[in-house]
This record gives sequence, structure tokens and C-alpha cells, in this order.
Amino acid sequence: MATITSHLPNVKSILSNQHRSHLQLKPTTVRMTMTTQQTRNPHLHWASLQADIQAHLKSSITIKQPLEVFEPMHHLIFSAPKTTVPALCLVACELVGGQRHQAISAASALLLMEAATYVHEHLPEPKPKRKPKPVVNHVYGPNVELLTGDGIVPFGFELLARSDGGENSERILRVMVEISRAVGSRGVIDAQYRKTMDTRSDGEEICHVEEIRRMVEKYEGGLHSCGAVCGGVLGGGSEEEIERLRKFGFYVGMIQGMAQRGFNESKEVDEARNLALQELKFFKDKEVDTIKVLLNI
Amino acid sequence: MATITSHLPNVKSILSNQHRSHLQLKPTTVRMTMTTQQTRNPHLHWASLQADIQAHLKSSITIKQPLEVFEPMHHLIFSAPKTTVPALCLVACELVGGQRHQAISAASALLLMEAATYVHEHLPEPKPKRKPKPVVNHVYGPNVELLTGDGIVPFGFELLARSDGGENSERILRVMVEISRAVGSRGVIDAQYRKTMDTRSDGEEICHVEEIRRMVEKYEGGLHSCGAVCGGVLGGGSEEEIERLRKFGFYVGMIQGMAQRGFNESKEVDEARNLALQELKFFKDKEVDTIKVLLNI
Repeated sequence: MATITSHLPNVKSILSNQHRSHLQLKPTTVRMTMTTQQTRNPHLHWASLQADIQAHLKSSITIKQPLEVFEPMHHLIFSAPKTTVPALCLVACELVGGQRHQAISAASALLLMEAATYVHEHLPEPKPKRKPKPVVNHVYGPNVELLTGDGIVPFGFELLARSDGGENSERILRVMVEISRAVGSRGVIDAQYRKTMDTRSDGEEICHVEEIRRMVEKYEGGLHSCGAVCGGVLGGGSEEEIERLRKFGFYVGMIQGMAQRGFNESKEVDEARNLALQELKFFKDKEVDTIKVLLNI
Repeated sequence: MATITSHLPNVKSILSNQHRSHLQLKPTTVRMTMTTQQTRNPHLHWASLQADIQAHLKSSITIKQPLEVFEPMHHLIFSAPKTTVPALCLVACELVGGQRHQAISAASALLLMEAATYVHEHLPEPKPKRKPKPVVNHVYGPNVELLTGDGIVPFGFELLARSDGGENSERILRVMVEISRAVGSRGVIDAQYRKTMDTRSDGEEICHVEEIRRMVEKYEGGLHSCGAVCGGVLGGGSEEEIERLRKFGFYVGMIQGMAQRGFNESKEVDEARNLALQELKFFKDKEVDTIKVLLNI
């Protein structure tokens, strides 16, 4: 712990950030790991952001009555694969001078939206196709997984809607519009539709690079872009900062999405990385080492 | 039209309503049918509320790119069976002295949530069960209907989140929490789960009166209760008015839900009607004829 505590952040410089908007935020009661013990080791810092989101979700999503509904919900949320979108939301909030508790509900809501998407994308098939991929162990039947996915989405919006103490409602509504659009019909749903249409009857995906790119733009690109914007808005970033974060998030999503589909050595990924770095230059006076973790450089 | 225009509402008495909270609302730009031409014929008034919701949705949900996503969305929203929940939201808003445009986005969001629920409840079956009921003509395949239902929900939240001109954000967030809870895991999802568990493998529902009652409480009861509360909140009702509306809406939902399941002549429905009338007595100085339409008396 000595390594961590010896790297206290320069809180004064963060709070005096000239780009913070005039709106003041009321601190929530959520306890944050290392909020005042951030480390300059970017990987440890990144890990602490992820740990805080998990802790916030665990305290928010208790298993309660009706157990038949909440037990699968709890299981499916915590077993869904994690992405870097929620932590990007927090690090973006910190980058513009905010404190992570200001964006923790939005980060959690993003994780919930991603979990719901994953559940509906991997519903158990009554007759499994020849090549199901990825292979998912299903604890519940299709009806329960369908309903659980349906239940997670409004819970995410609820978590966000009730996170406000009354002084931050306009920012919360703005963030809700961003999240709704990213996960909705012009975002993830569009990408999922393309994926569905590009899957042959034997479950094998048809791969056209151009089509994959368009899918990744809407999916990983749009979600990371949204995560970064939400953090920027809730941290009180200026409009310029928020738009830089939007682009940065988009490039991060493109790098990750293309790499996951086997294009990690491509010229396109290199270009996206350079463009992302360009956006970060705007924040040259800030601590950008943690957010750079996403670029794998 | 003479009948309609000769029954102008008493706008002065509405605006001077002592129960309105201090928060002022900014009028939206939505044009309302008969907003200043309300009629004292409660059935005509009711019809005008429903027409306004349809008009608002039609102007909000245009068919745009990507067509593959928006065309089914448009079709499924407008072909889903309509309930009285959205119009109850508007009439509750008017009852507490608000104007219907203040609640039109919430009413539309409620309609969208109900449409999404309906779509997922009636997904096309790969192998139809022996007794599918009700019989639904499916234009699209199960994948498209699943994705479309998933897309409608965030759109509903988006519509509500961006309906605020900046002065009403706290009320909007409060309404979002109400809607999220009503359609979520302790509301409609719980009811759907019970229904799923009570359906035999041949598609026939098992009927236990007590189980049906609990399902109706969460489903029609919870949704109507939510609709009435949202209208009360957005119309600037007092806390007492809002809680009266919550109970009134619940009883209306119970009456409708039990009647739809063959219990329309039951002692229980009569009791619910009396309890609903009791709640309305609180509004004795107001025009309650339109909201009474829901009680069929």
C-alpha cells in the first residue's frame, strides 16, 4: 500500500481546473476505493476505477424479493463479460477535473446496458446452431433470460435517475440522452441488426471488412464514445473537452472492436491510435497516463 | 366542432390551482389537439387526450435510417394494442391543474414501454405451441422483434430525457424512477415472470385467482398507478394529490386487469371501483368527469 499512498493526486490542481463548469455537484455517499489515494501508476489507477464500479453495483443490486427475478438478474449482470466502457466514463470524469463519485452511477448504468445487451445477444437457443460462438453456459432458460435482460435496462435508468441529489439533474438528463442513443436503434441495436443479418443459418458470421467496420463504429465505437462523453459531462467538462472525449472514446472503441475481430495489426488500428493521441493532446496539462492505458502504448 | 368549441375549459381556475408546486414549467412546442378547446363531454375529452398522444408519437417516431431498424420499430409501436395508461397520465396532469403538454412525453414514453413489453411477450415462436393466444400476425422474425423491443425502451427514456427545456429536470428524473420501477423487475417483469411460470408446456395458462390477482397488481395495477403518478408529478400536483392519484391508478388497473381475465362481475372489481371513487373525492373541487370514464360508471 506504500506505493499507492505515496502517490496522492494533486487534488488542488484538479479542483481548480479552469474548464469545470459553474454547476456544483453534491457528493454522494458512495465510498470509493482510493478516491483520495489515487496512484500515478496508471494500471493501478485503472484497476481502482474498475473495483469502484463493481463495489457500487454490488451495493446497488442486492438479491431481494421476488427472488425468482432478482437472482437471475444478479447472476447475469455479474457474469457478463466486462468492457472498458464504464471505467472510461470514470477516467474521463477525472480528466476534466471531476471526482469519480460524480460519474459512478453513469458508469454502472453503462455496465448494466452492456450486460443486458450481452444477455439478449446470447439467449439460449431451443435448437443450438451447428457452430454457436461464443459458447455460453446457460443457467436459465430463454424466457427467464429474455425477461432478465428486459429488467436490467430500466434498472440502469433508475440507478442513474435517482443518483442525483437535486443539483445535478440537467447533467443527468443529458447523460441519459447520450446513453439511450448509444444503446438504441441508431447505436448498438443497429449494430446487432447488422450482425443478425450477416449470420448464415448455420451460425457462421459472414465477414466483409467494410460491414465489420460499420458494425464496430456503432457498437464498440459508439459505446466507448458515449462512456467518455458521460464522464466529461458529469465531471463538469467544457463543451470542447466533451467533444474531444467523444472522439477519443470513438477511436478507442474502433481499436478494440477491430482488434477483437482479428484486425489488431491493421493500418486502420494504427491510424485510430494516432487520432486518439491527437485528441489527448488537448489535455496536455492534465494527467493523461491512465486514459492512455486504453491505447496499449 | 361546435359542440367542442363551446366547452372551453376554465383556464383561470386551473392556473390558480392552489396545489400546484412552486416549480414553473416551460411550455414545449408540441401542438395539442383541443388544448384550448377541451370539452366537458368526458368521452370527447378522453378521445382528444388519446389523439394527442398518437400525434406526439407520430411526430417523434419518424422512419429514418437505418430503415431496417426503424421500419419494424414504427410498425410494432403503432400496431401494439393500446391501453388507458398514457391517457391517464395526461388526465391526471390536468386534474392537478397542469396542462397536457407538460406530461405528453411521459405519456408517450409509457406507451412505448407498453409496446416494447407487448413485442417481447409475443415474440414469434420457432415452433408454435398448440394453443397460441392471443393470435398475433407476425410481419418480422423473432430476431428482429427481439431487437426492436430492445430499441423501443431506450427510445422511450430518450424522449422523456430530452423533453425538458431546462427548468423541469427534477420532475422528469422523478418520473423516470417511477416508470423504471413500474416496468422493471419489481413491476411488469415480475408479473411476466409469474405468467411464464404459470404457463404449461402446451401454452395454456394455469389459473389460480390469487396468482392472477398478484399478477394484475404488478401489471395493470402498477402501470396505471405509475401513469397517474407521472401526470400528477409533471402537472405540479401536491404530494397528497400524487399519492391519491397513485392509489386511484392502482384501483383502475385492478378493475381493468381483473375484468380482462373474466372477473368483471366480481365483488373484488366492485370494491376496487368504490375505493377508486373514494380517492377521487379528494379532488371534489376539480373536474373529475373525464378521469371517471375509466371507472365505467
